[in-house]
Amino acid sequence: MIDIVRTVDELRGRVGDWRAQGFRVGLVPTMGALHAGHLSLAERSMQLTDRTVATLFINPKQFGEGEDLESYPRDEASDGEKLRAAGVHLLFAPSVEEMYPDGFMTGVIVGGLGDVLEGTYRPGFFDGVATVVSKLLNQAAADRAFFGEKDYQQLLVIRHMARDLDIPTVIEGVATVRETDGLALSSRNVYLSAEERSAASVLYKTISEVALKVRAGADILNLESWGRDQVLAAGFASVDYLSVRDAFSLEPFTDVSGPGRVLTAAKLGRARLIDNVPV
Amino acid sequence: MIDIVRTVDELRGRVGDWRAQGFRVGLVPTMGALHAGHLSLAERSMQLTDRTVATLFINPKQFGEGEDLESYPRDEASDGEKLRAAGVHLLFAPSVEEMYPDGFMTGVIVGGLGDVLEGTYRPGFFDGVATVVSKLLNQAAADRAFFGEKDYQQLLVIRHMARDLDIPTVIEGVATVRETDGLALSSRNVYLSAEERSAASVLYKTISEVALKVRAGADILNLESWGRDQVLAAGFASVDYLSVRDAFSLEPFTDVSGPGRVLTAAKLGRARLIDNVPV
Repeated sequence: MIDIVRTVDELRGRVGDWRAQGFRVGLVPTMGALHAGHLSLAERSMQLTDRTVATLFINPKQFGEGEDLESYPRDEASDGEKLRAAGVHLLFAPSVEEMYPDGFMTGVIVGGLGDVLEGTYRPGFFDGVATVVSKLLNQAAADRAFFGEKDYQQLLVIRHMARDLDIPTVIEGVATVRETDGLALSSRNVYLSAEERSAASVLYKTISEVALKVRAGADILNLESWGRDQVLAAGFASVDYLSVRDAFSLEPFTDVSGPGRVLTAAKLGRARLIDNVPV
Repeated sequence: MIDIVRTVDELRGRVGDWRAQGFRVGLVPTMGALHAGHLSLAERSMQLTDRTVATLFINPKQFGEGEDLESYPRDEASDGEKLRAAGVHLLFAPSVEEMYPDGFMTGVIVGGLGDVLEGTYRPGFFDGVATVVSKLLNQAAADRAFFGEKDYQQLLVIRHMARDLDIPTVIEGVATVRETDGLALSSRNVYLSAEERSAASVLYKTISEVALKVRAGADILNLESWGRDQVLAAGFASVDYLSVRDAFSLEPFTDVSGPGRVLTAAKLGRARLIDNVPV
């Protein structure tokens, strides 16, 4: 069994003991339903620090009306076993009451980066993410915290929030882990039927081809439109966005000499899949 | 000369050195224009900790349209000398660019407590306060931070923000320092003409009498109305609010067995004065 603590006080006690021994501490925030993507975050943390805490908290503030808060996959025992096997030292799994006690009334908002793309389609999502992550960072006081590039906009929002609020933890991005056909690992892939699962890899193939063609100098608006058509033709019900953006500001990609990013979100059956690749 | 640092890195270096020596650290955030009220915060910090950092930063985010950001009194040399004479160990006086570098886009909002009273009359004020204070707390990583009860609602907002975001610094409230006639010390008292200064003490006298009468069981709505009339009769141009509230939630004071607070804000000449007393 992995060691589990459920209160902020216990977490601080454990991290404080490690600090007193001179250990560097890594934090891996998750909502559970762990897959190899999460475990790659933990592996990176174990490379760069001496002690790794994973957190398991399904944050109600980052689910909107009609989203999948109730049905989000939950299996703490299995998650704990995966983390233990990976060598993670501690699991912090607080209750909703521990994180948001009665009278909780503070929010952290990231304007600009949080308002576009996912922010347009999931109002309040990044406010919920920024709020819970600022709490987790302050609770754990880790040296480094690890987030997947799969949620690329989220990574940028968190990095900016931590910088703006002077939270001293270094935010580390970790490359997306993919199935052999290219589909990005996601806890929500379990929502896909067999047929949908086989169509799903078109998302990654399409944005990869868009990235290649942007590098080759093709017209971006035409490419975005072509990409959306490809995804719809594969059986996706809708494409929220498929867009080439500046890799730091997420503004439209006009300075093609700088780094860009192709980002997409699209609906397939019960699932809403997101993915992104560098340009 | 007091030691002055102007960057977060320097501040962290100095606080880190103190920590390494086992010193407890106190933080006294100010906007300068220091008076005996600020110095009482510093004194309290020096009683409860081993090393005290004062900060001097006129935070543009907590000034609204048409407020006195440009004319707010500034005299760093005099402030530094007062702090040195009081025994403060370090002054952190960052530039606006150091606190809000290009691309800054994060805000901290405290709903509920931040929406009433001052929040109604100064939209965005508490967002600006919560944002800058969360930064200062994260920058200094002090054991305790000291705020005056003169800004009572601000103290509650900051205490709640720090609790909600799990910032480990203890928030300490320090009693209001008053002139001999009862007027609360404020950097904005310099805006008063001699005649206005002599009328100003009516504010404190009135809320003190309201608090006495609430304790004696008088009707609260009548008392609030009586109090506003007293203040206007003394020559104040307007009363934004004069209100008896629950001392923790700032909701209307209905449970008279619990602690209450009489809070007021009123305009006199160029100044807008605020004050409060316990019930």
